Amino acid sequence: MASIFGKIFTVSTWGESHGQAVGAVLDGCPAGLPLCEEDIQKLLDRRRPGQGKMTTARDEKDRVKILSGVFEGKTTGTPISFAVFNEDQRSHDYAEIEKWYRPGHADLCYDLKYGFRDYRGGGRSSARETIGRVAAGAVAMKFLKQVAGTEFLAWVDSIGQVDCPAVDTDKLTHEMIEASPVRCPDSDASAKMEAEVLAAKESMDSVGGTVRLLVKNVPATLGEPVFDRLDALLAQAMLSIPACKGFEVGTGFAAARMHGSEHNDEIYCDNGTFHTRTNNAGGIVGGISNGENILCRMAFKPTATISQSQKTASRTGENGELAAKGRHDPCVAVRAPVIVECMAALVLADLYLQQKRNCL
Amino acid sequence: MASIFGKIFTVSTWGESHGQAVGAVLDGCPAGLPLCEEDIQKLLDRRRPGQGKMTTARDEKDRVKILSGVFEGKTTGTPISFAVFNEDQRSHDYAEIEKWYRPGHADLCYDLKYGFRDYRGGGRSSARETIGRVAAGAVAMKFLKQVAGTEFLAWVDSIGQVDCPAVDTDKLTHEMIEASPVRCPDSDASAKMEAEVLAAKESMDSVGGTVRLLVKNVPATLGEPVFDRLDALLAQAMLSIPACKGFEVGTGFAAARMHGSEHNDEIYCDNGTFHTRTNNAGGIVGGISNGENILCRMAFKPTATISQSQKTASRTGENGELAAKGRHDPCVAVRAPVIVECMAALVLADLYLQQKRNCL
Amino acid sequence: MASIFGKIFTVSTWGESHGQAVGAVLDGCPAGLPLCEEDIQKLLDRRRPGQGKMTTARDEKDRVKILSGVFEGKTTGTPISFAVFNEDQRSHDYAEIEKWYRPGHADLCYDLKYGFRDYRGGGRSSARETIGRVAAGAVAMKFLKQVAGTEFLAWVDSIGQVDCPAVDTDKLTHEMIEASPVRCPDSDASAKMEAEVLAAKESMDSVGGTVRLLVKNVPATLGEPVFDRLDALLAQAMLSIPACKGFEVGTGFAAARMHGSEHNDEIYCDNGTFHTRTNNAGGIVGGISNGENILCRMAFKPTATISQSQKTASRTGENGELAAKGRHDPCVAVRAPVIVECMAALVLADLYLQQKRNCL
Amino acid sequence: MASIFGKIFTVSTWGESHGQAVGAVLDGCPAGLPLCEEDIQKLLDRRRPGQGKMTTARDEKDRVKILSGVFEGKTTGTPISFAVFNEDQRSHDYAEIEKWYRPGHADLCYDLKYGFRDYRGGGRSSARETIGRVAAGAVAMKFLKQVAGTEFLAWVDSIGQVDCPAVDTDKLTHEMIEASPVRCPDSDASAKMEAEVLAAKESMDSVGGTVRLLVKNVPATLGEPVFDRLDALLAQAMLSIPACKGFEVGTGFAAARMHGSEHNDEIYCDNGTFHTRTNNAGGIVGGISNGENILCRMAFKPTATISQSQKTASRTGENGELAAKGRHDPCVAVRAPVIVECMAALVLADLYLQQKRNCL
Repeated sequence: MASIFGKIFTVSTWGESHGQAVGAVLDGCPAGLPLCEEDIQKLLDRRRPGQGKMTTARDEKDRVKILSGVFEGKTTGTPISFAVFNEDQRSHDYAEIEKWYRPGHADLCYDLKYGFRDYRGGGRSSARETIGRVAAGAVAMKFLKQVAGTEFLAWVDSIGQVDCPAVDTDKLTHEMIEASPVRCPDSDASAKMEAEVLAAKESMDSVGGTVRLLVKNVPATLGEPVFDRLDALLAQAMLSIPACKGFEVGTGFAAARMHGSEHNDEIYCDNGTFHTRTNNAGGIVGGISNGENILCRMAFKPTATISQSQKTASRTGENGELAAKGRHDPCVAVRAPVIVECMAALVLADLYLQQKRNCL
Repeated sequence: MASIFGKIFTVSTWGESHGQAVGAVLDGCPAGLPLCEEDIQKLLDRRRPGQGKMTTARDEKDRVKILSGVFEGKTTGTPISFAVFNEDQRSHDYAEIEKWYRPGHADLCYDLKYGFRDYRGGGRSSARETIGRVAAGAVAMKFLKQVAGTEFLAWVDSIGQVDCPAVDTDKLTHEMIEASPVRCPDSDASAKMEAEVLAAKESMDSVGGTVRLLVKNVPATLGEPVFDRLDALLAQAMLSIPACKGFEVGTGFAAARMHGSEHNDEIYCDNGTFHTRTNNAGGIVGGISNGENILCRMAFKPTATISQSQKTASRTGENGELAAKGRHDPCVAVRAPVIVECMAALVLADLYLQQKRNCL
Repeated sequence: MASIFGKIFTVSTWGESHGQAVGAVLDGCPAGLPLCEEDIQKLLDRRRPGQGKMTTARDEKDRVKILSGVFEGKTTGTPISFAVFNEDQRSHDYAEIEKWYRPGHADLCYDLKYGFRDYRGGGRSSARETIGRVAAGAVAMKFLKQVAGTEFLAWVDSIGQVDCPAVDTDKLTHEMIEASPVRCPDSDASAKMEAEVLAAKESMDSVGGTVRLLVKNVPATLGEPVFDRLDALLAQAMLSIPACKGFEVGTGFAAARMHGSEHNDEIYCDNGTFHTRTNNAGGIVGGISNGENILCRMAFKPTATISQSQKTASRTGENGELAAKGRHDPCVAVRAPVIVECMAALVLADLYLQQKRNCL
Repeated sequence: MASIFGKIFTVSTWGESHGQAVGAVLDGCPAGLPLCEEDIQKLLDRRRPGQGKMTTARDEKDRVKILSGVFEGKTTGTPISFAVFNEDQRSHDYAEIEKWYRPGHADLCYDLKYGFRDYRGGGRSSARETIGRVAAGAVAMKFLKQVAGTEFLAWVDSIGQVDCPAVDTDKLTHEMIEASPVRCPDSDASAKMEAEVLAAKESMDSVGGTVRLLVKNVPATLGEPVFDRLDALLAQAMLSIPACKGFEVGTGFAAARMHGSEHNDEIYCDNGTFHTRTNNAGGIVGGISNGENILCRMAFKPTATISQSQKTASRTGENGELAAKGRHDPCVAVRAPVIVECMAALVLADLYLQQKRNCL
């Protein structure tokens, strides 16, 4: 059913890994926002593969085209259509995957669901689908930057057994994150993570990781009571990213070990504005942003497709083994931060526009 | 914005803690399902307060009425309207809360969002709002039981520092869960958890906990690629429950420490049906159910409202202290399992009906 | 599928003619709007039956209760739940209708669609379903009155062969409309229409009619390009009223006989505001309101249920005859104006709130 | 807000008259439907301009590309992306329109709504936007043809003062319609209509017309009670087509002159299937298809843009005159039939898929 996300600021993505193109339609962006292809391209460049040993060897330039919705450098209020044409496809790599189901991969489920599947590179379950999300998320980010100064920073917090130490959220920058080949702003941890990824790659294996997200300058009041709580929509947004298996906000699972007297963030008023002294809530209370930084953490499982031989079954029900060829990321968490930022921006932009009409 | 959940099997809840009534409208339930008030009442009875030392002293019978959509004992295919009239309200308990914001509670955010709030008992952010979800979820559960034999079992997996040991999912029953005052099927752990809750209560405090969910006999093919993945919608559903701060599916956060060769579940075919030998995925791959048990875990923070004195600010910006009166659950996790089951049933019923039309 | 109308200001109705109650949930109304039951009751009183010879003899007081979403006389921004309990039901009148399909009525289609039906009084296809729309529409109207001074006036423009002469839209009032037993503001036409209705009634027949709608003080800019054009949504809204078979806006069908040079409304600017000299467009151009009065016209077929004997078939496929008992309106158009106004208000309130976020 | 139509079988269109391209994303089409570009192209060829004296001189090949969602000649169940690149644009023709608002055109409303507009060729309000609808509608039509043998036939029923006589719906074919330059299957009427269009063109004017739609082999049971009635959604669909100002189903406005005993269609049962002897209802009763032919009629106003000089105002509030240059259809009704068919197919495909889940 509908590959649509959001209620007012809505994005609809389309495209398969090995089809002609991938893209998205963004509808509901207010008129008058300055926008050009370069605004989107710089985020896509952070997402794209072929950037070193840490990612898949597939080399895609991922040049985005804006096909509608922008006139004389500004959004017109009408749907913005993005397309990225696929280039370095090599479909022949995937012949064996037509027959054998990759363990941990969506192959089997797609066949059960639809009766057949586009077996080239995962089709719609490919990470290439996220291009459309990044394109739309880039606009969401630009919009929120303009109306509220909101900033999104996501980084790799752990890979395998290696953890990033606590980060100073006041000083963290995109430059610090992007300087690391694994997108971990702590240089010691980054070096160890790199080794972890390479070790996995060399043993024809993959490895999992976690990503943290920080959102600064969040307007209070975003999030709707009950089902469309801000944290509930962030959870959906994050779990909708391929390989994401867990989400927590603020102290998250650790909160389940705490007492109320420890966990509750003390409220104070300073010059007419309300703040909290601590931020165990991660900036969201009762499903609504309170104006503090949003903090959350996501778990990414290791890439399903590995080159090691694994036992599995075929479409026709034969039991056997598969050693997957093709080009794959050894650690999907490394490419996840920009997608995490963009999905969060889509959630916040939509709730921002919803909030505009909550009061007379 | 719209307090509506689901695309085909949709539930819309309404009502405040201290208004006249709470309820829900369920739309999109197929015609012909046998349904009576008792089907819903038995789940509401698991949710309702006033059941012992483990929950709030507020005593509500929570008798549900079905006002439409059922004729001669069967659903007609038209909207089913549920109402539960509030009885034991005692609004006078909440006078002080009109003035002081409870730390960790939605009070401040509602005031910022709407300009004013129904301060009696949390209004819409009250746990009483979940009555409508349980009513609709009961129908979802009955529907899935009939069409697929699906069963939902949720239990308390930890409270504070006390953990429930691994449960034998083949043998687990609702009776085992409900026999425990804290809804933990392991009797040793249950006794320790009870002590943990009472200790918190005695020190005028509250305590957090985690809940596990097991869904058995899940049809494969449920879940839509991209945004409406089964696990993404479960994450939204769970985080939409008051006090839920984290969600993980299958091995969840532990997956981020693993290698692909460990995490991938081996696929095999037995008599024409595909299975996996392990279930690290928690029954969901690529966002789609694979027919194995669904397993997930949720973190609930400690109840925000506590009787201890806490520093906070008032509506008018005065900084001071509040010791909340009123009647509160010392551990919300204890009452969460039936809500968790119902939210999961709503997600699965909706995706089941969506799937019906995915193939020619 | 979902009995929900609107995207932001959404109404969801529930209830059957002979169930316990009928009602609606209105979600998305901004916080802070003054609202009490009397605001709704006065519109319901215009809709309700049993008001004279022109309508069905069923006597329902239709007392509305607001069960949620209002606190201290103002909307809270959360869902507003309305219920009207059914009183004068007499289900025994409908026994024969269980067996024989009424020609022109939804009986057969419901049986084909759902496999069975609530045969008492038409169930969900009953005009009583519109109570929920009027309740929600009353709020929409109050909201638009407050934010823009918008006013809605609908009246009967023809019954059978009798037409109402052109009305002076500047002078028309609700009092003029409601003074007529057939809701036609022209007293001569009203008298002739009354005779037409009574003649139909006496011959155990029914008669059709048309209704005109005038909306004054409409803010320009309402309506979304393409599918959610203001006129397209008005058309859906009107055709969704039982017995409505046609819709036209502005000159409507007559426009198909005209030339562009005749039909185009000349634009002029007066003191910085744009107006048109004529209003052939009916206040809507390109699907967007231009600030002029909205004018449209709807056709209502004669009531399907008549007491004359008609040939028809039974559920079991027997061909025979039915002379319907029960109490029925001889002319549904007479009770339609308030429903027309309310549906229009729901459309405009929703588009008003959508428009709030179209520009930066 | 969202340019999306449908709930399950959803289409989202994008693109402006003079942007790079126009297109659509179709989501929710079941997997396994045979589909190729030629299936769409043949309908687009019926829509495209530059086909003779009856239409605008703008010459567009309108070659459609399918960019996703089809694999090995069949739909995969994932979003289908269509694009048509614009070729013959001549934006310089539109310079004057930047300044002066065309009477009867959306120019003014867009400026009021968004603060500025893409003034080249009407931007999003251009008839070129309908390309995306035709592309998606072509798939809807193919789907319904395969599952139910459904056929859609629309033709021009009047232009100006010339009417087409009653058509034999059993014998009508697309060939008969397309053989006429004005798409009127009656050759005498066609010749007179041609003269009417040419006369308008020669006097630098435009002329209105009506279109009839016939749908054959409609499955009974399509349409949802209350808001999503089949006739209500058809009304929305039709009024959403540029220049459409009226809609009626079955006898439509004429029903308002009739008595129930005349209008009600007698039901009979023949070999276990229910039929009606007449079809005043136009195949839809209570908002649900009854299996008879669907019949409806739409009014199209004369093209707003004409070359005659008209009084109007400028963006800056100056009152003056405009004689619009550019290339325009003298009668939009002539190109409407294929759009009408496609919009109807989108409505029916969506309701068909909704109906799939209404019973257990």
